[in-house]
Amino acid sequence: MIKQLTIIGVGLIGGSLARALKQADAVGEVVGAGRNAQHLQQALALGVVDRIEMDLAAAVRGANVVVVATPVGAAEAIFSAIAPGLSADTVLTDVGSTKASIVAAARRAFGELPKNFVPGHPIAGTEKSGVEASFAELYKGRRVILTPTENSGPQAVARVRAMWEQAGAEVVETRVEHHDEVLAATSHLPHLLAFSLVDTLATLDDKQEIFEYAAGGFRDFTRIASSDPEMWHDICLHNEPALLKMLERFEADLSKLRQAIADNDGDYLLQVFTRAKAARDQFCGE
Amino acid sequence: MIKQLTIIGVGLIGGSLARALKQADAVGEVVGAGRNAQHLQQALALGVVDRIEMDLAAAVRGANVVVVATPVGAAEAIFSAIAPGLSADTVLTDVGSTKASIVAAARRAFGELPKNFVPGHPIAGTEKSGVEASFAELYKGRRVILTPTENSGPQAVARVRAMWEQAGAEVVETRVEHHDEVLAATSHLPHLLAFSLVDTLATLDDKQEIFEYAAGGFRDFTRIASSDPEMWHDICLHNEPALLKMLERFEADLSKLRQAIADNDGDYLLQVFTRAKAARDQFCGE
Repeated sequence: MIKQLTIIGVGLIGGSLARALKQADAVGEVVGAGRNAQHLQQALALGVVDRIEMDLAAAVRGANVVVVATPVGAAEAIFSAIAPGLSADTVLTDVGSTKASIVAAARRAFGELPKNFVPGHPIAGTEKSGVEASFAELYKGRRVILTPTENSGPQAVARVRAMWEQAGAEVVETRVEHHDEVLAATSHLPHLLAFSLVDTLATLDDKQEIFEYAAGGFRDFTRIASSDPEMWHDICLHNEPALLKMLERFEADLSKLRQAIADNDGDYLLQVFTRAKAARDQFCGE
Repeated sequence: MIKQLTIIGVGLIGGSLARALKQADAVGEVVGAGRNAQHLQQALALGVVDRIEMDLAAAVRGANVVVVATPVGAAEAIFSAIAPGLSADTVLTDVGSTKASIVAAARRAFGELPKNFVPGHPIAGTEKSGVEASFAELYKGRRVILTPTENSGPQAVARVRAMWEQAGAEVVETRVEHHDEVLAATSHLPHLLAFSLVDTLATLDDKQEIFEYAAGGFRDFTRIASSDPEMWHDICLHNEPALLKMLERFEADLSKLRQAIADNDGDYLLQVFTRAKAARDQFCGE
């Protein structure tokens, strides 16, 4: 049981965590904090949080666990703002999609990495955002990746792990750099491609007609391009090295496919498509 | 009412058309033809077709309407094979995702474009294939694009239009070249990107782990990479000019995004992502 949980940034991710822990009877008071008073009022009205607080240091005062659930670009300023309110016992975690940049932000804000700081990342979400999109089941059966730092204490790690497990998630641990590489491949690059494709089409002359002719496959393929632009702007800039590495690899492979089409090299196309279908069918099922 | 309908290639597309017309009481006998006896037996056993025929000229004999529903690469050989069995009254159409190449195939096979030939393309389908995946509702509310040639007679066009409307589709007509450009943008390029991305990931050393960490967004984004490799091999090669044009435009735009990430140009990223989200939300909704 977490007696007081403070969530900074009560959107889809933070709001769903609050709902899940309340449903599991795993939390006492949930304090919501953030920069947007209107969003916080909405979270309060929806019963997602029990109390709201605009002052971040005040919001974390007395908290057993603090979860930073804002876009990753805001992390450093938030760490600095909450520092005066954190007690020696308060466990701090985050939900950012990039981990090296969060660890660097914590190092700058706190001077050294606190023993109670455990970076985390729930692999869950939808293309929607905001507390009104939050729901208690978001984390059921989903993975949460923790990337403890060299300073993270075992008790803090255990506390964060227990919190996510009570929200229904399966918790795994890995290295910061490995997290950033894997997520660049499976999440950051796909989002970049979806945004890029939709924007390319949106700037064509006959865009109205083009989107009208789009079928269900296009809808699925581009769903992630409806994600929050600010959040993804932050992720792209904060996972630059790993994302650029994957992107360059993808561009090289795509260019080989383009060459094969231009050369009428059907064998190459068939080989790539067959391997891709086999991989997706094997790993993703439906 | 179509007294005899012959479908060459009884897979997801051909099979769903047969089911829809039967359900609408808009067809008498459905004859299934193709190269794979086992698939045809399955179509017969499922009641999707009433009679099967391995000899293509025999299969179209007596047919009021013939629908060629094979991968586009097979069209020319099929047109040549059915030519001896077609009567002056038989209306011929196809469901191919590329139209210029189909028209060229018909010109080569028949010498000149028959007045009863009306190229068509239903904008429907799933990543599944085969007659076992077919269902009567596939075309409900979906678009079918007809691209009549300069020789297509109005009666033939009307007959094909009526058939698709009875299957529940909304029929529109456009020029061959325009069809191929629009579909390159909304369908062929997205499929190419999805195949390419999954293949890039599948060739990474830690592919097992990479796919394990993939979330729902990745599943949606890559769903079309589970499509039939042979069909998409054919489409890429048969819509080469339009696809290469769109692909080059996409690659140029993606390269600008890469440069913006490398340059830490957040304004550019935010502008592209915001424009993309707005376009997708406006045109695709959910």
